Amino acid sequence: MSEGIQTAIMGVTGYAGAELARLLLRHPRLGGRPPVFAGRLNEKAGEEDAAHGGILLREIHPQLADNNGAGDLRLEPFSWELLAERGVQVLFLATPHEQSRAWAPEALERGLRVIDLSGAWRLNEPSNRAVYGFPDEGSEQAAATQAQAVYGMPELHRDRIAGARLVANPGCFSTSVILALKPLAAAGLLDMSHGIVADAKSGVSGAGKAPTARTHFMYAADNLSAYGVFSHRHTGELLEQIGIGASEIVFTPHLLPIPRGILSTIYVHFKRAQTRAAIAQVYRDFYAASPMVRIHAKMLPQIQHVLHTNYADIGFELDASGMRAVIVSCLDNLLKGAAGQAVQNMNVALGWGEAEGLQ
Amino acid sequence: MSEGIQTAIMGVTGYAGAELARLLLRHPRLGGRPPVFAGRLNEKAGEEDAAHGGILLREIHPQLADNNGAGDLRLEPFSWELLAERGVQVLFLATPHEQSRAWAPEALERGLRVIDLSGAWRLNEPSNRAVYGFPDEGSEQAAATQAQAVYGMPELHRDRIAGARLVANPGCFSTSVILALKPLAAAGLLDMSHGIVADAKSGVSGAGKAPTARTHFMYAADNLSAYGVFSHRHTGELLEQIGIGASEIVFTPHLLPIPRGILSTIYVHFKRAQTRAAIAQVYRDFYAASPMVRIHAKMLPQIQHVLHTNYADIGFELDASGMRAVIVSCLDNLLKGAAGQAVQNMNVALGWGEAEGLQ
Amino acid sequence: MSEGIQTAIMGVTGYAGAELARLLLRHPRLGGRPPVFAGRLNEKAGEEDAAHGGILLREIHPQLADNNGAGDLRLEPFSWELLAERGVQVLFLATPHEQSRAWAPEALERGLRVIDLSGAWRLNEPSNRAVYGFPDEGSEQAAATQAQAVYGMPELHRDRIAGARLVANPGCFSTSVILALKPLAAAGLLDMSHGIVADAKSGVSGAGKAPTARTHFMYAADNLSAYGVFSHRHTGELLEQIGIGASEIVFTPHLLPIPRGILSTIYVHFKRAQTRAAIAQVYRDFYAASPMVRIHAKMLPQIQHVLHTNYADIGFELDASGMRAVIVSCLDNLLKGAAGQAVQNMNVALGWGEAEGLQ
Amino acid sequence: MSEGIQTAIMGVTGYAGAELARLLLRHPRLGGRPPVFAGRLNEKAGEEDAAHGGILLREIHPQLADNNGAGDLRLEPFSWELLAERGVQVLFLATPHEQSRAWAPEALERGLRVIDLSGAWRLNEPSNRAVYGFPDEGSEQAAATQAQAVYGMPELHRDRIAGARLVANPGCFSTSVILALKPLAAAGLLDMSHGIVADAKSGVSGAGKAPTARTHFMYAADNLSAYGVFSHRHTGELLEQIGIGASEIVFTPHLLPIPRGILSTIYVHFKRAQTRAAIAQVYRDFYAASPMVRIHAKMLPQIQHVLHTNYADIGFELDASGMRAVIVSCLDNLLKGAAGQAVQNMNVALGWGEAEGLQ
Repeated sequence: MSEGIQTAIMGVTGYAGAELARLLLRHPRLGGRPPVFAGRLNEKAGEEDAAHGGILLREIHPQLADNNGAGDLRLEPFSWELLAERGVQVLFLATPHEQSRAWAPEALERGLRVIDLSGAWRLNEPSNRAVYGFPDEGSEQAAATQAQAVYGMPELHRDRIAGARLVANPGCFSTSVILALKPLAAAGLLDMSHGIVADAKSGVSGAGKAPTARTHFMYAADNLSAYGVFSHRHTGELLEQIGIGASEIVFTPHLLPIPRGILSTIYVHFKRAQTRAAIAQVYRDFYAASPMVRIHAKMLPQIQHVLHTNYADIGFELDASGMRAVIVSCLDNLLKGAAGQAVQNMNVALGWGEAEGLQ
Repeated sequence: MSEGIQTAIMGVTGYAGAELARLLLRHPRLGGRPPVFAGRLNEKAGEEDAAHGGILLREIHPQLADNNGAGDLRLEPFSWELLAERGVQVLFLATPHEQSRAWAPEALERGLRVIDLSGAWRLNEPSNRAVYGFPDEGSEQAAATQAQAVYGMPELHRDRIAGARLVANPGCFSTSVILALKPLAAAGLLDMSHGIVADAKSGVSGAGKAPTARTHFMYAADNLSAYGVFSHRHTGELLEQIGIGASEIVFTPHLLPIPRGILSTIYVHFKRAQTRAAIAQVYRDFYAASPMVRIHAKMLPQIQHVLHTNYADIGFELDASGMRAVIVSCLDNLLKGAAGQAVQNMNVALGWGEAEGLQ
Repeated sequence: MSEGIQTAIMGVTGYAGAELARLLLRHPRLGGRPPVFAGRLNEKAGEEDAAHGGILLREIHPQLADNNGAGDLRLEPFSWELLAERGVQVLFLATPHEQSRAWAPEALERGLRVIDLSGAWRLNEPSNRAVYGFPDEGSEQAAATQAQAVYGMPELHRDRIAGARLVANPGCFSTSVILALKPLAAAGLLDMSHGIVADAKSGVSGAGKAPTARTHFMYAADNLSAYGVFSHRHTGELLEQIGIGASEIVFTPHLLPIPRGILSTIYVHFKRAQTRAAIAQVYRDFYAASPMVRIHAKMLPQIQHVLHTNYADIGFELDASGMRAVIVSCLDNLLKGAAGQAVQNMNVALGWGEAEGLQ
Repeated sequence: MSEGIQTAIMGVTGYAGAELARLLLRHPRLGGRPPVFAGRLNEKAGEEDAAHGGILLREIHPQLADNNGAGDLRLEPFSWELLAERGVQVLFLATPHEQSRAWAPEALERGLRVIDLSGAWRLNEPSNRAVYGFPDEGSEQAAATQAQAVYGMPELHRDRIAGARLVANPGCFSTSVILALKPLAAAGLLDMSHGIVADAKSGVSGAGKAPTARTHFMYAADNLSAYGVFSHRHTGELLEQIGIGASEIVFTPHLLPIPRGILSTIYVHFKRAQTRAAIAQVYRDFYAASPMVRIHAKMLPQIQHVLHTNYADIGFELDASGMRAVIVSCLDNLLKGAAGQAVQNMNVALGWGEAEGLQ
């Protein structure tokens, strides 16, 4: 009964937006071609659209060079009226958090279902949100919007995402770390007095499409660097979703010399000695109904295992005492870490099969 | 008697400028630490220098993280007076061609010896210079400056570089192609009626330090692209130095997913059948007095063979008929293709050993 | 009526075999899961199969880590009987040419349709085959088998592939160069007296899955090397399919530091001056019925444009005189250069849509 | 007085051996060219040497393509007599640990000073050595040899290395982690009840020159993988040198898609709140006499900062409470992690300046 749903993408000039366009076009439940918008101020989309009648997506993302596919989608000048004319019901915001913060409330008012890929609506605790410095923090509208937002990790909040009007799609690093830790935390196995370490490594697409000193080939290639130590914005998501305090985890991201993919190496202590089989069972039980998480009992996952897929792969090793574990969690930051999870959330929100269009 | 020569670098914020700083500091004939300048308008060097008393070179080039070496050189606000105070005799311009065009005349007037790494003074034919669109083209000063300029390829113009006041350091691609072709052309072996093909491939440092869409890791990695087909600015150098017409060569550069290095694959026809030994001898004779060119008689050179060296490596294969050859020419675009050759030119201009400070 | 066709893959341990497994599993016309075989002597498949009941494909190709997909295919001990039991009608040989040479005749005798990805049956001229040194060269059986073989480039031989019993899938470099040159040659535009240059560059997967000195990361990364100059085995295919003599083309492959993709830069002279529009039209007319070739009239294709697709992308630039062109041809060596083209050939041979399962 | 010392290298076919050859040739205190040996059974050096009179080092390591440098060193058939004839006083063993185990005792007996780059003699505790499975474990000779061995980290054991006959050069990962932790441990700052995490990442040269599935470009590129979790051989060195128990640290190495370089991210808890300045001072005091360790007080080091240098760079961040720190430690695994540290050890052992030949 939900067939024929119409979607639209704001922020299609970024990597996540481009992946979204690709995914939506091949989704079996969606008809028609989604209108796509630059969704950024000071970008080509404005004046040039007026002048040239719209840029093709492949001019911005040359790797989408296909005809009759995402490459042939034409950027349009955004207006709420256009969304109404096209009968858009689901709006994906692949925009910077400032813009998602500004647009989500209006989109909700206009009756659109919103899936927001930014950090605008992920955090419930004002203290955790402080790092974003939202100018509307404390306003009534912001509070009302936040109250509607559901953290879009289907593996944790499937029931609340079903029917949600505003889904806050998780951060890429957060997804990788939360999926690895939540089952162990929920089972009460973790000895938090030792603290958890989450050492995460991401490909360069995670740093965005804007050319900067850090995304220059000469900086990223033949290199590895840590950044955002004790200060990365995804930390708040870890605290809220796993249910731990800031002093109980250290999260450090690194910039890998590869285009895409995240691998997180996570170090935990258990309250009581565990066996390999017991831990595998905890993960399998927790994800029994989750088609996009794969538990590796025999080997550790690697980034290549998940590239261009929406899977999150989790593996682990225990030490001889059974008191400590190293967990390895891998995903593709543009799919399970962004656009793929957004589609997964749309599927759940609309009552479709969670993995439709994703396998 | 030339000992104690003092040098300075304009444009130390680029990759070639940084390599120059490294090379000059370890040169056995130079004393003192060279003053270094950003040499670009609208860059940090201006206001910030005033405020902070100078940026360390390692803040711009983190790989120069050494103490008491190039990393500890401090950018200074440029003035001709400062050059005079420090007793600078040799000025390296690692600046964009517009700036080299503007500064070289004044530097010469002030009695400085100039080694310019840009395309400002490389070309004798106005038609070849047209591609640069110099605003002072046709002016008396420009003509007078050009008349003093010597094309800075010691292997071809060693005698004229000795004592020269203005050395126009060759382009990186040009160096790679000219060194491979000049000996064969000079020996009268080439059948130009077939035309020469020079298919060149360069690492990303050749595209400059400014972050752009093309230098973004996501564009360059896992990719290869041709550019500047039939229009690259280095073509004029090939014509003038090899002594051929525009219809006799096609030169195509490509962007390689590596930080540095150039490999040119060059296709020629001979007038008469040649042997492997004969061609090797032609090269060896031509470069008998050239310590920075290495002829490989048994295998083809690869980019790794020349990285972080000032060598140009040349190898070749003949077909069974002896009428055609494929020549492979490799160099490090930041050394023999830029800063290394500039130091080589300084050595020759000042009467020092050509390879001093370069091995 | 061809529905329910059953396929099998010999040589699934290589990269092309693995891509084939992936493609066949998602092909809309194929039912059931294809039996897959190592197809190599002295490999795990023999003894270990007996002992362990078969290795999963993901143990050999970890990037196929999916469940219920290619990763879960189990290598089986090969026997002709097993093929018969499973009702296999189409056998893909992704084996070294020696093995394809040995097995294709028997497969044909047993009534199987064979699509061979090796060089065993691509060449009609004994002189071109000499480079392979087939031990059965000159035998009656080899001649009879060769007589049945059709060169599997649907864009050139669609009619003969339809219904063919033995399709010789082209080489990866050959596909890239032939697709770029055939339309111009067929239109009689090329001035062969100047000779053609095809400078080709391939990712490391083209060098095979066996660990060797050349496929070591330390050799391939941060490097570029030419190889097989005047001697590469794909040259014969160029001559036969384009219809030119050995003295009329030089083909040089290079090893790129990327996992996959080929870009060929091809240099031609025309008999008469051409326009951009005219050349574009020649290509468009030639490929009017070919869904897997894309002509770029405005920009040059790059390797990223075709990765993980079965497209061959062709673009070009003319010089000011209109007498010379540089053509750039890109494809994914494992898809249009191997497994993808093999599936395309199966589609044509069985009368299905040429692009089915490939878009 | 130590001038004119003659050295030799066993195991010059590996990456560390090749770097050693390069370093020894440019060392200002060494005269003559060191004899170099393959030092491995079943390798070219044996029969072929006899037949061909020796292979040039550049045939094994093409990047050493220089003339009159390391590339021109010729492998010789090893014999103790040859060492004696050439007056060799210092023997570098860049051999697998099995061979170092076998050869070091004889070399010592013959009066040679030995610097061993393998794991053969690094560990004092039999329980830590168990992971190597030495067949001579427990023998008198092994015990006597071990008793002479000094752990070759000059920053910790400078006094004992001076004059030592057998120096056990540390592991690359061990060097990176020990240098970061020893000053904090020695100052009594670490709260070991929380446990230390050392998450280390290394370039592919760390996996050795032998082509294997893991060193294949297709495996390593566009990937990241963890390995040796809770079982890596370098762990014992961490325990003995830092002075902690196996339950107090977790060490996890990862394989980076880069040729060389190690970055270790290390997580510690302090007993009492610390300040940034206090920690910087602890490091500066500890390394006051150590020219090859650089403390970064303002920024975190990256792999590019140390490539092709013998420096170990250490930086850190503290959390707001001052109770936790993330330490980042970088080095070039082939230099400070292998050949460079070996030369540093030679310098100290012979009473020369510690950094001679290394800057």
